[in-house]
Amino acid sequence: MSRHLTLTIAIVTLSAFPAAQPARVLSPDVRPDRQVTFRLMAPDARAVVLTGEFLQGGRPLEKDASGLWSLTVGPIEPEVYHYNLTIDGVRTIDPGNPDVKTGSTPSTIASILEVRGDRPSFHDPQPVPHGEIRAHWYESRTLGSLRRLSIYVPPGYDRDQSKQYPVLYLLHGANADDTAWLRLGRVNVILDNLLAAGKTLPFLVVMPFGYGVPPNQPAAPGENTRLFGKDLLEVVIPYVESAFRVAANHDNRALVGLSMGGGQALSIGLNHLDRFGYVGGFSSGLGAEAEFPKSYGTLIGDPDVANSTLKLLWIGCGTEDGAFNASKQFSMFLATHKVKHTFRETPGAHTWMVWRRYLHEIAPQLFRHS
Amino acid sequence: MSRHLTLTIAIVTLSAFPAAQPARVLSPDVRPDRQVTFRLMAPDARAVVLTGEFLQGGRPLEKDASGLWSLTVGPIEPEVYHYNLTIDGVRTIDPGNPDVKTGSTPSTIASILEVRGDRPSFHDPQPVPHGEIRAHWYESRTLGSLRRLSIYVPPGYDRDQSKQYPVLYLLHGANADDTAWLRLGRVNVILDNLLAAGKTLPFLVVMPFGYGVPPNQPAAPGENTRLFGKDLLEVVIPYVESAFRVAANHDNRALVGLSMGGGQALSIGLNHLDRFGYVGGFSSGLGAEAEFPKSYGTLIGDPDVANSTLKLLWIGCGTEDGAFNASKQFSMFLATHKVKHTFRETPGAHTWMVWRRYLHEIAPQLFRHS
Repeated sequence: MSRHLTLTIAIVTLSAFPAAQPARVLSPDVRPDRQVTFRLMAPDARAVVLTGEFLQGGRPLEKDASGLWSLTVGPIEPEVYHYNLTIDGVRTIDPGNPDVKTGSTPSTIASILEVRGDRPSFHDPQPVPHGEIRAHWYESRTLGSLRRLSIYVPPGYDRDQSKQYPVLYLLHGANADDTAWLRLGRVNVILDNLLAAGKTLPFLVVMPFGYGVPPNQPAAPGENTRLFGKDLLEVVIPYVESAFRVAANHDNRALVGLSMGGGQALSIGLNHLDRFGYVGGFSSGLGAEAEFPKSYGTLIGDPDVANSTLKLLWIGCGTEDGAFNASKQFSMFLATHKVKHTFRETPGAHTWMVWRRYLHEIAPQLFRHS
Repeated sequence: MSRHLTLTIAIVTLSAFPAAQPARVLSPDVRPDRQVTFRLMAPDARAVVLTGEFLQGGRPLEKDASGLWSLTVGPIEPEVYHYNLTIDGVRTIDPGNPDVKTGSTPSTIASILEVRGDRPSFHDPQPVPHGEIRAHWYESRTLGSLRRLSIYVPPGYDRDQSKQYPVLYLLHGANADDTAWLRLGRVNVILDNLLAAGKTLPFLVVMPFGYGVPPNQPAAPGENTRLFGKDLLEVVIPYVESAFRVAANHDNRALVGLSMGGGQALSIGLNHLDRFGYVGGFSSGLGAEAEFPKSYGTLIGDPDVANSTLKLLWIGCGTEDGAFNASKQFSMFLATHKVKHTFRETPGAHTWMVWRRYLHEIAPQLFRHS
């Protein structure tokens, strides 16, 4: 469909369906030249401002005589972005866009903008075999609550009932939830495409909910990761290893996360070298540099253990990310203590654009030990 | 946690995490007496109005000297509702509430309010065995696109590899998508609870995306259901019957839907009596009464076929629903033509409250033919 030919388009309704459907304002309106127009019908509003990952700062929309606000930006590089409209000082979504980013706190709510390029991206769905997503509920005896796991199962899992698979435990960031790596990270699409190209081995991806302390409650420093880690190690991993056909050993477990989850992956993984053969942190929330020697005392006490048992220790961060210095400091700390690792610095900020690329980069390196 | 003791609560953040987190305004604030306060910090807004399934019409919020808008309503009956805030004329979500209802069009976007009662409801999660949710992608050769199925798999499905299960194909309404019956209908929780109580047989629930014509494109009358029905009958059902251990016969297939999906279930089901043993429509979008004889010509041509092959034909609608008259007319049409069926009228409007109850009511009646 040519989405840019018409401003208002009809919603399919049924004669018996009672809800009144206002004429829809098309927003965002992505044109073939990758210029994008944002629109909002708001005759009574006094100021409407656009913020988004494709902009520096905010940009005001302009109102016409009918009360329709609009702003055209771009051309915008092909990517998946999020953005907000601020209407008379209230930051909210674009009410014209059905594609909404949600999480575990309201601060993460945004609208999603997808700008497609001329050729498919590594995270665009292709006509290749598709894995499944599964949601499992488990009772956490350590946290005393019913919790959900999101799980990617590679194509073919149900066919060969004798094969055992490695598992990547993949952690989300603050304000997000266990669906974030699917919904925004597109881990299933990225892995489907890599598998079809023969570039990665098949493995399961288990995405737990990363809060040991609920996100709307205060927590003492380290308490959230301590409680989450206990649940991961004592409940989640045993549950996964009983419910799925997985290879339940060190060489077949990876632990990777982003932001808050990057800090968790490094903290939990590097303090349990007997459990994980692969550890990674993207744009990691690492805490203060002065605490590293204490937080990673076991690791640096005998770096030979880490260097002989870890098949991969991967640290990455975008250079425009507020978390960049912490990642760089952590890499220097590891180097000082002779812990082998990869430190990857790339362009980019604290965004899913960076994390999708990092996942795409490290997936082919996982479980290559044999 | 006592959510009502404090107005602003801290978001868990990491020192290295760069995003600024504004102090959060608690909204909705559900108190033990089931009074609910809605709040919005908006010093520059001139009017904020609440609409919701627990209200008749809109109610204005009031602003205090700090620019904090608020309104207390209730006590509200225990239920799961949706609501919107309209800020200076723009209908949007409650920016303080992380729980957002989304769908396939922006008109469905709302915030979700859950008011719990003293005792668990039939749709509250309980410590019972939990089924899984699975998402499968399939290439639809009839629609020429990659489409997703959401599937509920009952507890124990993976254990007994010899058992075959019946399947309920369950259809969503206009503006929604294949996740609506999970996210808002709680079909997995309702069935987990019924199964644990021994009140229903175990079966799979397959939830396809109900649009044959994309929801933002105009469609000729009947075209959406015709294209969707072709995909369901020729692609989805064969796919499900190859990918899952299901009993692939008439007596083990049910087709039920709500609103637009109710019209689809009746139209497709009652014109394919050889395929479905159980058919149901909730608050159905039925089209004009004058068209019934043509749309259901095969059915009324030989009602004995329907009466001998259909184990259940169930029509339900809330009396406050704009679709009520159409359902009643359809029931009278069936009665006139001596087609046996159940017509259930209950209090309620065009809401998920009604549809959750209907699902809970009919699930125990499904697949009881043996």
